[in-house]
Amino acid sequence: MVLAPEAQDLLFRRARTANSFAPEPVTDAQLRAIYDLLRWAPTSANTQPLRITALRTPAAKARLIPLMAEGNRAKTESAPVTLLLSADRRFDEHLPRLLPHAPQMREMFADPQAREAAADYNATLQAGYAILAIRAAGLAAGPMLGFDPAGIDAEFFPSGRRHVVLVVNIGRPGVDPWFDRLPRLDYAEVVETL
Amino acid sequence: MVLAPEAQDLLFRRARTANSFAPEPVTDAQLRAIYDLLRWAPTSANTQPLRITALRTPAAKARLIPLMAEGNRAKTESAPVTLLLSADRRFDEHLPRLLPHAPQMREMFADPQAREAAADYNATLQAGYAILAIRAAGLAAGPMLGFDPAGIDAEFFPSGRRHVVLVVNIGRPGVDPWFDRLPRLDYAEVVETL
Repeated sequence: MVLAPEAQDLLFRRARTANSFAPEPVTDAQLRAIYDLLRWAPTSANTQPLRITALRTPAAKARLIPLMAEGNRAKTESAPVTLLLSADRRFDEHLPRLLPHAPQMREMFADPQAREAAADYNATLQAGYAILAIRAAGLAAGPMLGFDPAGIDAEFFPSGRRHVVLVVNIGRPGVDPWFDRLPRLDYAEVVETL
Repeated sequence: MVLAPEAQDLLFRRARTANSFAPEPVTDAQLRAIYDLLRWAPTSANTQPLRITALRTPAAKARLIPLMAEGNRAKTESAPVTLLLSADRRFDEHLPRLLPHAPQMREMFADPQAREAAADYNATLQAGYAILAIRAAGLAAGPMLGFDPAGIDAEFFPSGRRHVVLVVNIGRPGVDPWFDRLPRLDYAEVVETL
């Protein structure tokens, strides 16, 4: 490993999914720093479909809470900021600027089904980068899939061009913030060499 | 940012998608170190569906090359190791061990369609972690989506329980290894605060 041990700990080894948060706010500067890091990680054909909606005000949170699974409501209320990570299914509108040397790539996304699959796939890849970028900022991430996706899309993205792929609470860990570390699969169960 | 600037550069800012590779081999110890890092990053319900097939021998590479898009063949031949990242769609068999406190979660994956969607989603999230873990090991990653997915599944995963989500060349960068850096979306285009 070239990455320093303390960085390995910060991003992977000691970082934990937080289930409670301290009241300390998450600033706009922190959100900018997180995006300024994650945006450099790669997406296919440089599509960058990830969009981020940061919910901070009580009014915004109140729109989300009933759409979360019951077990995710208290922690979502306790987080200073909750991020809706969504896929922009019309990411192709930006391609002439993002991929100027390959204008023919846009034709690959002419079919709506192929375009939506590419949007959701790349936004999910970027969600992985986002979790590590949040940790890089010294914040705890609490990613959740227990929510009503159609409800969130209708409530927050009424134009129909976005689809939520992950909801992530962020902030400083609160009281008793995590469960015991769960086991991971062994190398021999995951990796084969041919 | 709490993450040190050199670690930000290694993982995000200076890291680039490599399109050619030096002949220096990638060792089993490096593959183990990469997995030992990425395995700690989170998946929903601790499902960990990602599986990795590391192709190193000429015989294994020869099975893959015709299934890659033409523009991806030369670089895939030049890489000392090519990783097939796939989703194990029967990841639920491991859940009694991976999520011992919540045996009821396995019922959520009884429906094959829901189970396959969860497998592909979480393996894609883990593919994002994997790209950063490869960079953490000091190697360049060359992720590619230009391949025949049904062909790779049939050739490498004939049992039908796995589905390829990404192919990644890894190694030291070779001659003239990357294109100019492509633009990224601005903060205001990606992030909104409510």
